[in-house]
Amino acid sequence: MVPHIFRYEISPHVWVYLECNGILHSKRTSFQKIEVVDSLDFGKMLVLDGVINLSERDEFVYHEMLAHVPLFSHPDPHHVLIVGGGDGGTAREVLKHGGISRIQLVEIDEEVMSVSRDYFPALAQSLDHPKVHVLVMDAVEYLKETKEKFDIILIDSTDPVIEQSGGLFTVPFYRDCLNALTDKGIMAAQVGDVFFESNLVMSVLSNLKEAFQIAKIFSAPIPSYTIFPYCFAFCSNRINPQGGLGLPRFDGSFETNYYNPQIHQAAFALPEYLRRDFQG
Amino acid sequence: MVPHIFRYEISPHVWVYLECNGILHSKRTSFQKIEVVDSLDFGKMLVLDGVINLSERDEFVYHEMLAHVPLFSHPDPHHVLIVGGGDGGTAREVLKHGGISRIQLVEIDEEVMSVSRDYFPALAQSLDHPKVHVLVMDAVEYLKETKEKFDIILIDSTDPVIEQSGGLFTVPFYRDCLNALTDKGIMAAQVGDVFFESNLVMSVLSNLKEAFQIAKIFSAPIPSYTIFPYCFAFCSNRINPQGGLGLPRFDGSFETNYYNPQIHQAAFALPEYLRRDFQG
Repeated sequence: MVPHIFRYEISPHVWVYLECNGILHSKRTSFQKIEVVDSLDFGKMLVLDGVINLSERDEFVYHEMLAHVPLFSHPDPHHVLIVGGGDGGTAREVLKHGGISRIQLVEIDEEVMSVSRDYFPALAQSLDHPKVHVLVMDAVEYLKETKEKFDIILIDSTDPVIEQSGGLFTVPFYRDCLNALTDKGIMAAQVGDVFFESNLVMSVLSNLKEAFQIAKIFSAPIPSYTIFPYCFAFCSNRINPQGGLGLPRFDGSFETNYYNPQIHQAAFALPEYLRRDFQG
Repeated sequence: MVPHIFRYEISPHVWVYLECNGILHSKRTSFQKIEVVDSLDFGKMLVLDGVINLSERDEFVYHEMLAHVPLFSHPDPHHVLIVGGGDGGTAREVLKHGGISRIQLVEIDEEVMSVSRDYFPALAQSLDHPKVHVLVMDAVEYLKETKEKFDIILIDSTDPVIEQSGGLFTVPFYRDCLNALTDKGIMAAQVGDVFFESNLVMSVLSNLKEAFQIAKIFSAPIPSYTIFPYCFAFCSNRINPQGGLGLPRFDGSFETNYYNPQIHQAAFALPEYLRRDFQG
């Protein structure tokens, strides 16, 4: 049998070819093309507009880092907003924190949720948790209008290069996030890779610094994304993620697979070539 | 013009395709196939037996981490042995440390050096530095017989999977390294990727622990290797690379592009799934 190959572009001159059992799902919605690819090395992968969004094998790295770095930096988070995150993986991690009373999830594309329910039930089941409230709408509009206040906002979107997510990376959007945060509130966002897209990451960081007093980059290696370092942003007006005492609040009340207090600190260490640019 | 494509296997089911201006050199020696590939995104790359050994674009990450992590962990290194490293990149970094009086480089394949002189002169010129002494021989044999003592031994070889390097990953070889180290001596070695080769890395670490009282993994993301985390080992009977005071000796007497004291510490933070396995 000739193997299926899924071809994934990581730059205009570099492609990754993954051997697959097949394409399990492929459908274009009003917002994007959604595919589910069953790869040999990474398990099932959710692919949005040709970009790997998550793989069964390593989604824990992305979701643990996006959720636990801000949540363990905050003294007592209760109310969380997830922008995007229709697969349910980020909500699953947030729910592990005992103090959480309510998660508002605002996903623009209902199909991401139904595909995840079909193919990634271990992630999507968190969408049905009684603490999780799902709204299908554009988060840019939601944040312009909401009167809610959140302790944590997590931007779990597609990359800034993809058109439909573009509004999530602007100064007005970040100011709306700040307005929807409590006093010690924290926003964390996935930003992208700093090797092929360093100018993009720089401009996102510059926008974040317009809105927030503290804006830092942290990173994690996500093997299926195949390009590194992969970056997130941490923003707040009050909370320094590296704390005063060295290690974040981490109560050991649940097990993790990637995150630990040493990784929390280490993720903020920037290579010298980035430190010069980002903290200059 | 149809572009040249260089195809690189990172697992039996995952390949990377790099667009290239061409293959500048391709020759099989007694030890390995040596290629020089001129890629669009990573610049010129030295490829040994089909595995990317270095690229112009990101070799600084590998060479700075292999050299500076052990050298800045040692109180006063003078005498350094480099096993392999025929491209000259590791020697270039070691030479930046003012206290170094002599570097012994033992490379099995003379052709690596002559190819590097032709295509990577910015690295290979360190081979002609008066403090650098080159021997063309099998380092396994060299270390069995030498009466020299070194403050630092750096194993800058090809991966443990490649046959000709296999002897560099055994307990007897590591014991010979220990015998050739001064009292506060440190050995550092490139080990490989822990995602697709975690069993291999575990067995290397287990061998290192047979020979050394302190054996730790540290990591760095090297984009052209396309798989992460990429690991090195730090071994010593006396020196803890994470020190007692938090940060390593770093005198700022030369500029770095990847390494800094925060990166030094961060590189030893292991994801929870590795910490459980490696430190268990």
